[in-house]
Amino acid sequence: MRKLFQEELHNLGDQLSDIAVLVAEAMEKAYRSFETADVQLAEEVIAADARIDAKQNDLDEKAIELLALQGPVASDLRLIVGALRMSTSLERMGDLARHIAQLTRLRYPDTVAPAPLVEVYREMAEKDVAIAKKLVELMVTRQLDLVPQINALNEQINDLHAGIFITIARPEWDASAATTADVTLASRYFERFGDHGVSVARKIQYLVTGEWEAAPTA
Amino acid sequence: MRKLFQEELHNLGDQLSDIAVLVAEAMEKAYRSFETADVQLAEEVIAADARIDAKQNDLDEKAIELLALQGPVASDLRLIVGALRMSTSLERMGDLARHIAQLTRLRYPDTVAPAPLVEVYREMAEKDVAIAKKLVELMVTRQLDLVPQINALNEQINDLHAGIFITIARPEWDASAATTADVTLASRYFERFGDHGVSVARKIQYLVTGEWEAAPTA
Repeated sequence: MRKLFQEELHNLGDQLSDIAVLVAEAMEKAYRSFETADVQLAEEVIAADARIDAKQNDLDEKAIELLALQGPVASDLRLIVGALRMSTSLERMGDLARHIAQLTRLRYPDTVAPAPLVEVYREMAEKDVAIAKKLVELMVTRQLDLVPQINALNEQINDLHAGIFITIARPEWDASAATTADVTLASRYFERFGDHGVSVARKIQYLVTGEWEAAPTA
Repeated sequence: MRKLFQEELHNLGDQLSDIAVLVAEAMEKAYRSFETADVQLAEEVIAADARIDAKQNDLDEKAIELLALQGPVASDLRLIVGALRMSTSLERMGDLARHIAQLTRLRYPDTVAPAPLVEVYREMAEKDVAIAKKLVELMVTRQLDLVPQINALNEQINDLHAGIFITIARPEWDASAATTADVTLASRYFERFGDHGVSVARKIQYLVTGEWEAAPTA
């Protein structure tokens, strides 16, 4: 009985890292569609988000079933509740990738980002994808030195996000107001993706060490 | 023992509605600070958000304790997991009120919203506050006719949000790019607040009826 339960817990971890793999893929494709105004790829990301949502539901049902059937205690309980929380954050990261793809579709055949910002978004997106991939690695290996790496990437994303507002406020910024609004939302989506990644990493760290680290400065 | 457990569950519900009361208050004050550039009031909202976060932590700890100590089954379990999820959404609503207050502080002594948008934001904020107050009522009374009212308010907020982008895209929109960016973010914050409210309302409905209604169209 106990052995079966440990197996089920292990499966829960696998389900979680499967979702993280899909999320990394979603952001990678969403960004590619965004940079190149590839509306087919954008549609693919939008459609694939339903799969992430379905997988989150499966995981949540499984977790609640484990809580109900097993009456787990202490560390097992913490793990199951942690899995429920992480699945919520991952699902939200999938939504944000979808939002990027939806902006792409909305502005097609134009690209969303005007030339002066292309490089900044590319950097943000690369760091977002790196965060999602490091989450998968963290889930599989529990190598806690990945956590500060994820935090550092997120801080770099925050700096890039702030930089976009500085660019927008410059006198030479001559994009239309509609573009300015798009650019602001896109930056916010890339930035929030990183925040959720940090939040998942902190939960894994907590599960491994049993202790909360101080939250990285927002 | 059973009676004590029911009492604890009841307390969990009270903790949840206490947080919802604070969230309604936070959004009400955040909007007032935003409309009038009242930086003291904005600071008050920003400081008070830590109280919401602390109350969410207390609730989560209590919920996990109940899961651990009682090994609850079926409907009780659903209720505790539901409380954990709702507390996350409410905490996020508090964050969004804080973001509105932070925008106010950033632009002080100017107001964030230019004159043509003041009325739209007022409507959005009033509907957000109404949603938060209806959540409190729903938690206390379990009157399920409040759920479609909350959904309807959120759809009105979505329409107002879309309207802001139409205003921005008009040739007569002559605000600076920095203002356009602020206005976009503010609109997004008001809009997301309503989404989280809908999500909490759906969870309460699920707890009362045991059935998921189809999600309202996003």
